[in-house]
Amino acid sequence: MKAAIFKAKGAIELGERPDPTIKVPTDAVVRVALTCVCGSDLWYYRGQSEYTPGSPIGHEFVGVVEQVGDSVQNIAKGDLVIAPFFYSDGTCPNCRAGITSACIAGGGWGVNGIDGGQGEALRVPLADGTLVKVPGSEHSEKTLPSLLTLSDVMCTGHHAAISAGVKKGDTVAIVGDGAVGLCAIIAAKRLGAQRIISLSRNPARQKLAQEFGATDIVAERGEEANEAVLKLTDGIGADASLECVGTNESMQTALAIARPGSIVGYVGVPHGIEIPVENIFYRNVGVHGGPAPVRAYIPELLDDVLKGHINPGRVFDFKTDLNGIGEAYAAMDERRAIKSLVKL
Amino acid sequence: MKAAIFKAKGAIELGERPDPTIKVPTDAVVRVALTCVCGSDLWYYRGQSEYTPGSPIGHEFVGVVEQVGDSVQNIAKGDLVIAPFFYSDGTCPNCRAGITSACIAGGGWGVNGIDGGQGEALRVPLADGTLVKVPGSEHSEKTLPSLLTLSDVMCTGHHAAISAGVKKGDTVAIVGDGAVGLCAIIAAKRLGAQRIISLSRNPARQKLAQEFGATDIVAERGEEANEAVLKLTDGIGADASLECVGTNESMQTALAIARPGSIVGYVGVPHGIEIPVENIFYRNVGVHGGPAPVRAYIPELLDDVLKGHINPGRVFDFKTDLNGIGEAYAAMDERRAIKSLVKL
Repeated sequence: MKAAIFKAKGAIELGERPDPTIKVPTDAVVRVALTCVCGSDLWYYRGQSEYTPGSPIGHEFVGVVEQVGDSVQNIAKGDLVIAPFFYSDGTCPNCRAGITSACIAGGGWGVNGIDGGQGEALRVPLADGTLVKVPGSEHSEKTLPSLLTLSDVMCTGHHAAISAGVKKGDTVAIVGDGAVGLCAIIAAKRLGAQRIISLSRNPARQKLAQEFGATDIVAERGEEANEAVLKLTDGIGADASLECVGTNESMQTALAIARPGSIVGYVGVPHGIEIPVENIFYRNVGVHGGPAPVRAYIPELLDDVLKGHINPGRVFDFKTDLNGIGEAYAAMDERRAIKSLVKL
Repeated sequence: MKAAIFKAKGAIELGERPDPTIKVPTDAVVRVALTCVCGSDLWYYRGQSEYTPGSPIGHEFVGVVEQVGDSVQNIAKGDLVIAPFFYSDGTCPNCRAGITSACIAGGGWGVNGIDGGQGEALRVPLADGTLVKVPGSEHSEKTLPSLLTLSDVMCTGHHAAISAGVKKGDTVAIVGDGAVGLCAIIAAKRLGAQRIISLSRNPARQKLAQEFGATDIVAERGEEANEAVLKLTDGIGADASLECVGTNESMQTALAIARPGSIVGYVGVPHGIEIPVENIFYRNVGVHGGPAPVRAYIPELLDDVLKGHINPGRVFDFKTDLNGIGEAYAAMDERRAIKSLVKL
């Protein structure tokens, strides 16, 4: 089968992988319908994080179940399913506590001999715990991209909001106007935020941010951004501050604009972040976040997607097929695209 | 009047200060009945934090109101009052949000011309917002020390538990067996923790920890402590981990024994703490804490003290008068005492 292969920094190419098969009775084989490129894939693409050359890549996909192992009970051949970016058994203490991204038996895609999401098909371990069946038999072309965002980006934005404890009536500030930051706007609005401040300097993203629910845009950066947000919040800061990038600069902004007593929800994969402990201690500002427990979040967000209450699939502004995988990366790397959709 | 004066590292001596008077209509003058030495005072005493020589010191006291300014309405001459370690107006956005320790108009004792708590009397700014009247007219010698702990240490232990989100049925691990750590045990039990693991290697403190509600004692330190707590928690870690010391070693322990998805509540004044961001990110472990918003916590804890449900005054195992202030510090510094009470 065909699949995207990480060759080297800046080089993702289509290659061949063996067709996946059931190896243990808890496996399923899923044929991918839609996949996409994640901001976190760019860390590898840009050479800012290590990735083994020759490996498959990608961790977001929806697809159709082609085959299930003998012990799989919750899904069946022909089901349309959403795969979280981390597989999980659903039964370990961490899964039971809702932190499926820390599943003791779990793991990621594209490593340890498991295929990546950016390919024609995958063997999915722990299929019962991992996959979420999309109810119904008809799925419009319009809904599918939003279903795909539940694989990672929408749930990751939601995780930022949940980690920061966003509640009804809050003023929420969101650092980062990438797909995660934009989904965090949807999440904050959905959780009842009254005012949503998006830190964005890109006109197209500002527009989408506002359509998703941002009430204020701050285009400044660094110290000027801090001042702008403090000015908007009577000098106190945001009730919840969401860090959706992963750089030290964005974290320092997120910390500076958080009001005393609040928590910065952070979901950007951290690169070079240093937490100024004394500063945040004296202000009673906390930090909480990490890889989103996507599997735990999908059911409630899926319901909102299917009812049309949220439409996170709008973050995809570049569309291609598997032959265009290299261009899908390049478009995001060069910030020509917010997020690239790959249709199989 | 007589008051403790910080002379130099290792030297706290009795000295003279002008009698306090009302300066602005929102002031009160309080005659101190009981005060004490805080673990955080020891950072100065040991020369590990800066303190201006010649300054008054101390920030925990209960006393009797001697005089009030013209605009003071909530308290009156003769009232027995508890003073939080930080004065606050009760009306600013941070106070209204319950973070009185970040009051915009607030401040601390012993600085900026304001007396310290370890003295005969003080001018209390923002008396209506700051002081809490103890109801009733008779207060037993037995209750008074517990009332004094509401000035700081009991509320600080409570803040660790609140910051970590301790809830009914939780397994809580508490790093530090000083007075704050011991009060955190009371707080965790009060919030419904089912299992309370106290990290303590001092037999007298272990005993008090158990009397306060600790169900398990871990005497190990460092990597061995981590292993012991993980063993007690089926390899998962504590539902809530409370850091009650402020050193890097204790924070690393608190982080290591926190289960995925949980928050480390930290209240020890941080000295040299470094947060390993990538480690805690991938485990979804957060940190939250800071100076306790004592004023916001006093009412509910006061009720429990007056009803005899909690007796945090038991942390005082060394008692003296103002003439013995130097010895009060020395006893804590040398770990002969958990916490020193000073009766006027």
